[in-house]
Amino acid sequence: MIMSDFNEKFKEYIAYTEEKLRSCNCHDDSSAAQKDLIDAMNYSLEAGGKRIRPVLVYAFCEACGGDISKAAAPAAAIEMIHTFSLIHDDLPAMDNDDFRRGKPSCHKAYGEAMAILAGDALSVLPFGIIADDTALSPDQKISIISRLAKAVGRNGMIGGQVIDMENEERSDVTDPELRNMYRHKTGELIAVSCVMGCICAGADSPEVLSAAADYGYKLGLAFQIIDDILDVTSTTEALGKPVGSDEEENKTTFVTIYGVEKAQEIAESITSEAMLLLENFENNSFLRQLTELLLNRKN
Amino acid sequence: MIMSDFNEKFKEYIAYTEEKLRSCNCHDDSSAAQKDLIDAMNYSLEAGGKRIRPVLVYAFCEACGGDISKAAAPAAAIEMIHTFSLIHDDLPAMDNDDFRRGKPSCHKAYGEAMAILAGDALSVLPFGIIADDTALSPDQKISIISRLAKAVGRNGMIGGQVIDMENEERSDVTDPELRNMYRHKTGELIAVSCVMGCICAGADSPEVLSAAADYGYKLGLAFQIIDDILDVTSTTEALGKPVGSDEEENKTTFVTIYGVEKAQEIAESITSEAMLLLENFENNSFLRQLTELLLNRKN
Repeated sequence: MIMSDFNEKFKEYIAYTEEKLRSCNCHDDSSAAQKDLIDAMNYSLEAGGKRIRPVLVYAFCEACGGDISKAAAPAAAIEMIHTFSLIHDDLPAMDNDDFRRGKPSCHKAYGEAMAILAGDALSVLPFGIIADDTALSPDQKISIISRLAKAVGRNGMIGGQVIDMENEERSDVTDPELRNMYRHKTGELIAVSCVMGCICAGADSPEVLSAAADYGYKLGLAFQIIDDILDVTSTTEALGKPVGSDEEENKTTFVTIYGVEKAQEIAESITSEAMLLLENFENNSFLRQLTELLLNRKN
Repeated sequence: MIMSDFNEKFKEYIAYTEEKLRSCNCHDDSSAAQKDLIDAMNYSLEAGGKRIRPVLVYAFCEACGGDISKAAAPAAAIEMIHTFSLIHDDLPAMDNDDFRRGKPSCHKAYGEAMAILAGDALSVLPFGIIADDTALSPDQKISIISRLAKAVGRNGMIGGQVIDMENEERSDVTDPELRNMYRHKTGELIAVSCVMGCICAGADSPEVLSAAADYGYKLGLAFQIIDDILDVTSTTEALGKPVGSDEEENKTTFVTIYGVEKAQEIAESITSEAMLLLENFENNSFLRQLTELLLNRKN
């Protein structure tokens, strides 16, 4: 796939995502009071993240030969879940971050109580959006909701946040422990994005879903290792957030365990494994390029 | 129904609820780190509330001639949602309550970060439990998940919490505004409990579901008015929480608008309307007694 076609496709996926997010969270059916809540939700939804997770839903749907119109609900749903986790992560009792992507974080803009409630509303709305979707069959919707709830919950992303909190108090975190934390905290949502895309296309054999999930876990891990590296090699301008925060917080990362060079090698090796898994999908050229791009990203 | 049969039935519904809650949130499949999270979730789930919402799910299922084994997943789900809302409500940035039913609130027992995450996990797990249930059909599960997500979300319970927050800053809240807040904050979850019970029994005609929802909204409103009255007429011992808190916080309630006597009349009148709606259900003797009991409760 030539670069301009890739960029075109990427923009198309993001445009679909943002259109669906807007239509799912508008002001039509609300009183003035809920307006503030919906504004707080939209403020964080529109903060302009990379939209990697919905892009993966669309891309896996197309890689399995599906029509992307089938993937709109799960794509919007996963971005809402991701946004809910960022809003709650930034709270004073959690990471206490005043800024998110250069803008005041949700609780700085709307107050702490409203940020808690905006996160709560974004944790629940996705399940309604999938249940109400008209493009998917009841069986597809049930399968997606079941997997999404597991990926988010106590043995998924939220469990990963707890592992992360407990690791922060330790200086002896090992490689397997760090991988386990990343797998839960970010891997589960990325893996389920890939899996949901396949299900939207009607490709739900155990082999296909397992390849998609494994690709997602590997992509998620490579993504985190690159994050660890950029935190020491990038600049605050290029990264859009303060660098050196891991060291300041005494966090164990792939860089503290292995150093930058070896961490880069590990990220490259995991990316190669992810590439191999893409051989299970026919229309994989977009996904191959996306994988390469995420390895070489500068922010 | 004689009182001993009613009590037997009530205990049976609660036993089913607690058994299902235990089996849905056990330690089997978790690492040591998630153990703390699951402990925090169970701490609040086991805090011993009235279990009114799951009891309504079971009772409406039976009132429609359904087998109560069908209602186990939605009954556990609604109690988890209720518990999640209490955990987040008690947080310092929200109502800042150190105690809940005489025990330290979740954030006092487990810390604020863990309480936020325990609430988050309890907001998501219910949708997975319903999706994974084997007693209900895919169509029943989709209908239940869609209604539950709406009842919880920005135009349901969470929207009601926002209205409540905004009302607290005003001294001119009117009767319709107060009713609207109660309808969202507590009415929606109670109404959807009744509706889900009917759907579990396969009774899903618009007439039946509308009667069940209307009953739930009325029961919820009467319940809130009684709460307003008990806050000024009860004792801290009988109520199990400090009385006089509404006055202390300058809250507008049915008592501040109408006084105790007139508020009691309104609660009785709404309870009578709820009773009339129960005529739409054949096996309604348990529900009639429950309705009466909630009107005359002392805590």
